[in-house]
Amino acid sequence: MIIHMVEGASGDEAERVIDRIKSDYGLFCESIVGTGSIVIGVKGIAGVIDEGRISELPGVDRVIRITEKFKDASRSFHPEDTVIDLGNLKIGGKNLTIIGGPCAIETEKQALDSARLAKDSGVDVLRTFVDKSRTSPYDYRGLEIEKGLEIASAMRQETGLPIVSELIDLRHLEAFLKAGIDIIQVGARSSQYSPLLEELSLLNVPVILKHGMGNDLNEWLCAAAYLMSGLDRSGKPSHRGNPNVILCYRGIRAFESATRFSADISMIPLVRMKSHLPLIADPSHSSGDRKLVERVAYGFVAAGAGGLEFDIHSNPEEALCDGSQAVTHEAERIVSTSRQIHALLNGYGVETGVSLELMGTGGS
Amino acid sequence: MIIHMVEGASGDEAERVIDRIKSDYGLFCESIVGTGSIVIGVKGIAGVIDEGRISELPGVDRVIRITEKFKDASRSFHPEDTVIDLGNLKIGGKNLTIIGGPCAIETEKQALDSARLAKDSGVDVLRTFVDKSRTSPYDYRGLEIEKGLEIASAMRQETGLPIVSELIDLRHLEAFLKAGIDIIQVGARSSQYSPLLEELSLLNVPVILKHGMGNDLNEWLCAAAYLMSGLDRSGKPSHRGNPNVILCYRGIRAFESATRFSADISMIPLVRMKSHLPLIADPSHSSGDRKLVERVAYGFVAAGAGGLEFDIHSNPEEALCDGSQAVTHEAERIVSTSRQIHALLNGYGVETGVSLELMGTGGS
Amino acid sequence: MIIHMVEGASGDEAERVIDRIKSDYGLFCESIVGTGSIVIGVKGIAGVIDEGRISELPGVDRVIRITEKFKDASRSFHPEDTVIDLGNLKIGGKNLTIIGGPCAIETEKQALDSARLAKDSGVDVLRTFVDKSRTSPYDYRGLEIEKGLEIASAMRQETGLPIVSELIDLRHLEAFLKAGIDIIQVGARSSQYSPLLEELSLLNVPVILKHGMGNDLNEWLCAAAYLMSGLDRSGKPSHRGNPNVILCYRGIRAFESATRFSADISMIPLVRMKSHLPLIADPSHSSGDRKLVERVAYGFVAAGAGGLEFDIHSNPEEALCDGSQAVTHEAERIVSTSRQIHALLNGYGVETGVSLELMGTGGS
Amino acid sequence: MIIHMVEGASGDEAERVIDRIKSDYGLFCESIVGTGSIVIGVKGIAGVIDEGRISELPGVDRVIRITEKFKDASRSFHPEDTVIDLGNLKIGGKNLTIIGGPCAIETEKQALDSARLAKDSGVDVLRTFVDKSRTSPYDYRGLEIEKGLEIASAMRQETGLPIVSELIDLRHLEAFLKAGIDIIQVGARSSQYSPLLEELSLLNVPVILKHGMGNDLNEWLCAAAYLMSGLDRSGKPSHRGNPNVILCYRGIRAFESATRFSADISMIPLVRMKSHLPLIADPSHSSGDRKLVERVAYGFVAAGAGGLEFDIHSNPEEALCDGSQAVTHEAERIVSTSRQIHALLNGYGVETGVSLELMGTGGS
Repeated sequence: MIIHMVEGASGDEAERVIDRIKSDYGLFCESIVGTGSIVIGVKGIAGVIDEGRISELPGVDRVIRITEKFKDASRSFHPEDTVIDLGNLKIGGKNLTIIGGPCAIETEKQALDSARLAKDSGVDVLRTFVDKSRTSPYDYRGLEIEKGLEIASAMRQETGLPIVSELIDLRHLEAFLKAGIDIIQVGARSSQYSPLLEELSLLNVPVILKHGMGNDLNEWLCAAAYLMSGLDRSGKPSHRGNPNVILCYRGIRAFESATRFSADISMIPLVRMKSHLPLIADPSHSSGDRKLVERVAYGFVAAGAGGLEFDIHSNPEEALCDGSQAVTHEAERIVSTSRQIHALLNGYGVETGVSLELMGTGGS
Repeated sequence: MIIHMVEGASGDEAERVIDRIKSDYGLFCESIVGTGSIVIGVKGIAGVIDEGRISELPGVDRVIRITEKFKDASRSFHPEDTVIDLGNLKIGGKNLTIIGGPCAIETEKQALDSARLAKDSGVDVLRTFVDKSRTSPYDYRGLEIEKGLEIASAMRQETGLPIVSELIDLRHLEAFLKAGIDIIQVGARSSQYSPLLEELSLLNVPVILKHGMGNDLNEWLCAAAYLMSGLDRSGKPSHRGNPNVILCYRGIRAFESATRFSADISMIPLVRMKSHLPLIADPSHSSGDRKLVERVAYGFVAAGAGGLEFDIHSNPEEALCDGSQAVTHEAERIVSTSRQIHALLNGYGVETGVSLELMGTGGS
Repeated sequence: MIIHMVEGASGDEAERVIDRIKSDYGLFCESIVGTGSIVIGVKGIAGVIDEGRISELPGVDRVIRITEKFKDASRSFHPEDTVIDLGNLKIGGKNLTIIGGPCAIETEKQALDSARLAKDSGVDVLRTFVDKSRTSPYDYRGLEIEKGLEIASAMRQETGLPIVSELIDLRHLEAFLKAGIDIIQVGARSSQYSPLLEELSLLNVPVILKHGMGNDLNEWLCAAAYLMSGLDRSGKPSHRGNPNVILCYRGIRAFESATRFSADISMIPLVRMKSHLPLIADPSHSSGDRKLVERVAYGFVAAGAGGLEFDIHSNPEEALCDGSQAVTHEAERIVSTSRQIHALLNGYGVETGVSLELMGTGGS
Repeated sequence: MIIHMVEGASGDEAERVIDRIKSDYGLFCESIVGTGSIVIGVKGIAGVIDEGRISELPGVDRVIRITEKFKDASRSFHPEDTVIDLGNLKIGGKNLTIIGGPCAIETEKQALDSARLAKDSGVDVLRTFVDKSRTSPYDYRGLEIEKGLEIASAMRQETGLPIVSELIDLRHLEAFLKAGIDIIQVGARSSQYSPLLEELSLLNVPVILKHGMGNDLNEWLCAAAYLMSGLDRSGKPSHRGNPNVILCYRGIRAFESATRFSADISMIPLVRMKSHLPLIADPSHSSGDRKLVERVAYGFVAAGAGGLEFDIHSNPEEALCDGSQAVTHEAERIVSTSRQIHALLNGYGVETGVSLELMGTGGS
């Protein structure tokens, strides 16, 4: 962290900044006094400093953060790829993990038909979503949770595949675990909802974390840090945290209205470079259009995504939720071609830019 | 709702659409058959139709929604301004309601000093925020809830003003109500978190609803509809809903990085036109810079906002949270000048555009 | 085009709309009268109607455009892919065209070194940019135009490759053509500058058209229509137009600041679906970071782009312009791997969604 | 400017950076060597350094700009408000300048009727736009330029008011000046088109500069610097530059589709703080809806805008261009109430934040 004092700031003002950083965060500083300007550099891990507070001190012009605030999710602090073991499945690193299934469970028949179609298409993990966070209360929000979880278990039973389901309401957590949900998903609308993140940080179960449609990279990785850090409310370490976090990119809101969200392809290699966590991407929710899903899926894999999650529905024209972005028989080709592209590029590695990020104890 | 069939769609395909709308929603349609194209118009209140489902039917090109999906919050269905009574205070309609206080309660002294400053500045309602939803787990998240609520009560006691506090974790709801919180705020990060909205829809306590930084007008008013509609999970009316919703505009994410958020001034008269709910705006969180707060506040009031909510801190340079957007002694001038601008313009009314919105039973 | 009248609009108001459309555009309408609402459908090619004018007529609620306003660039009116012949090179359709070279010509040595590197890397067309549109007047704007064009010709001579250069100032057009520039590029900052588009519409030379960083798909394809339509200022056809337009996607402005622009991967298959024009994409300018260029390039190709344009510089650390997004020795691998991915997927075709778009004379 | 070297960068690498800055820009540096990291501070006016070039040098991690690149437009270099004299009119400083008139000249009758209406409403300057930059070639682009300019002169004659008109095509410049256009406007679509800015920098005639809908504050003020700096293509001072620049804010593209553009109200006081140039705002083009124009105008004035420019049309329902955002009889109330709000607030001054911005020769 570098603190730039305003032109003409006094030595006393600089001292006050240095003292504050020492007293509040236990960190030491060095300063450079130029002709009429003073710059202060913080030594050590400055990731914990709240720059808003420092920028309020008299004489401070700008506070420039150099290390990120999402330490646990950052490759700077964990250079090796995280690989998550889920039974025989490995998620992260050089693996490609494909997740598919219906956007929502609607009926037992629709769910089981879709599950079989997804399995036949070659997916690794099955979507079994029972609770839906919808924009309007008039939209379909899913079956009763217990009934839905029962069908989710049946989908698992029928296919032998691990299953993922989105947890929205904390009060359903126990039922989710009892029903054998293998991966818990945190959706875009709850991705900054801290009570949910804190509760899941107490578990070891893998969590797929989407980002909010209005969140940037920093906020997304900070949400991951909520899951991983094991800090309590007062900022003190209280438990181990949940290391099994999988990031899922799904595009952000931008002014272009011809696509549902703007899935910035540069984010795929960038997130891989910045974070050691497994990264997958969702071509259904980002494009919002079945006709685009296949090519967007290939784009994500070619850009370095370690997996995909997309909607597969046995009968999308009867779907109660987001049918227009689900694929059916195309799923098989999407899965097999994605694996071919991944194999073609897998020797290439990902630019991790470690020299840029890795800072030792003298850094800031 | 208008459904445009693709060029060359058959009469049978049009019939199927009409049948589906009748069977699923109990609504009737009329169709117009042009040279090679068919257009179907839905009669009656089509707000409940899920257009995604209809757009999946064979032969459908586009589904065009004419009425909004946020019925309860819409001026179309409730042409008169909603005015909320809170003791002697009236919020909404031609009233101007000013809310101020620290961004977060940090210590008893800071809280009481700030409360007195806010009261002396002339605010109507006091901010007493005990729980903070922060981007990073390393940031200050507030005191222990019980201790915080105790101080909030003391602030209320000290000033005699009604108090507002943000509820993040549902498990704190009872304690909030016991502590005498007069208005519950739903923040940007939880504004689409349905379990919270559903729980608050069971109460009668006024709720200030912010919008997410990545949400548009439709999503914001749909979140209000979650609070107001009293629908259960299956979409059936189950209770009265909470009619006491106050909208608070705080700007959205846009590419301009020189301001914290983009607070589109056109949204102020537009939201007043579209919704009957009281509308206030937050010049601290939208601008993110104390030096901008005063003028932004005047802009909001002149554009038709029915109130303001902003950060007042007795000692911002020691603030633990967002000190850089809090005002101190400037608060008094902001309050009094805002009231002058409001008085100057109050005879003017707001364009409600009723002719555009008000649709009878034959509309769609 | 569908015109929805407000609830309670009179038959006379509807008649006036129908008359206006007939008198101003020579088009006929049909209307459907519902219980309390009237909907008017325009028959024939309504792409030329200015909806702003119609929406001003009394009693009109909404005007809903169904066909696009970029007729000449639209696949609806030209279902087959446009393929442009440039010597032995074919651009568009199933071909992959790779363009590379320095962001700007700085010195003869830098230009020729970079040209040789680009040729050795396997590019099809050479970037030879002599005029630079820069944000600040303090930034490097290129050599004198004549000197620059001389070097551009030398690059062409040296490599035997066709060359592309951006035309900013109309007064340089003649010199560009004399210097043997094979393809003229229209950059993001001039992509809506109509005098330039109009002048280039008089030629036959291929034009690469980028979109402005604040433009959406409709505006981009309308800019293409300026190049192609051959309409004069009064809207009357006056010449043939330039059919040889190549679209180049480079990402838009969005709130994410971790990448330079947001290159929405869904736009690649969507533009292919909407337009018959060749589509290439620029991984250097969209990502803004050399470390991301390779993977972004693969993403674009896998998503269906018909080509790439990116910066190759023999010595980027001495570059005067955008050196941080230029690649050097990596270029060869990028070119060859892009060709492999393209070959793997080339049998797949692109979803052209013709049924959605193709509207006959009865459409609207 | 501060240059942060990567962890472990060598002293030689730091030397190379310092040498480069001296040789290329004639500026001196000081460096601070911490435990394992080196920070370099540039002394003197670093605004001219191209940070992209420096960031390419080996061992450089980040280059952090402290002064802006739009020196001529910046309050740091010109603390006093610029006030432009136009006959009896003063634009800038504590003055409020209101500009109104039709979006485009369509016929002599429409133009003169609208001019009289604008004058009767109390505007200071008349809009007389003869050339229109439109999204689609099928839209109305204005009369023949000569005919249009003739009518513009007649509007000036009829009302005695100074007139403003947008110059798009450089080849019309002479005709504009001959026709007595008092102020030349540069529109959103040409605001980064450097040949136009360079040509206008040779004149003394006041220029209203809009920003592109995809441009941020830095780019806007850099466009102003193009007009003001008098640098030639090689970056050397060649003439005086045009000091008479008026900024006009009109909102940017954002994801909210309910308003035409997002006019961030915080930008009004921020631009006043950052720049000494007169700032006006356009409530017609930002909101895009006549029903919103009045309140948006009041918002801009209350937030500190030094003027307004909006569309006044005698008969908007027949308008050929943007009729839906033009006001008629409401104009009078908008003008008079804006003047009342301005008078109420004019004593308040604008926060210029000079301490933040003003940097002497020792700054960077």
